[in-house]
Amino acid sequence: MIQEKLGKRIKDLRVKKGLSQEKFALQISMDRTYLASVESGKRNISINNIEKIANGLEISLEVLFKGL
Amino acid sequence: MIQEKLGKRIKDLRVKKGLSQEKFALQISMDRTYLASVESGKRNISINNIEKIANGLEISLEVLFKGL
Repeated sequence: MIQEKLGKRIKDLRVKKGLSQEKFALQISMDRTYLASVESGKRNISINNIEKIANGLEISLEVLFKGL
Repeated sequence: MIQEKLGKRIKDLRVKKGLSQEKFALQISMDRTYLASVESGKRNISINNIEKIANGLEISLEVLFKGL
């Protein structure tokens, strides 16, 4: 399911940047529990929040979705 | 704004496939007025609906977001 694939990808990229969930959520002004539920594939996240995350990861949406 | 960029991209790709809004909406089981509002950048569309559209356009999410 795409929600799960995207959540896993976001988590992988966040961890690769050495950021905790808490630190990253704070950085992008997103509720930590919301970010957690996105990463675990439980949320049908919208494009505006996806963009917020991509910006925080300093990657394009194209790169975020690469191979998904 | 990302909503607008994505809407424009979806519209461009749909038109390139020679599909009317009505026909495409029917094909992907999406309400035509909802599709219209997405294409005009008025909707904060969610990942599940974005995937539905990408599937209908027969492209990957990576390609859908190319250059956005």
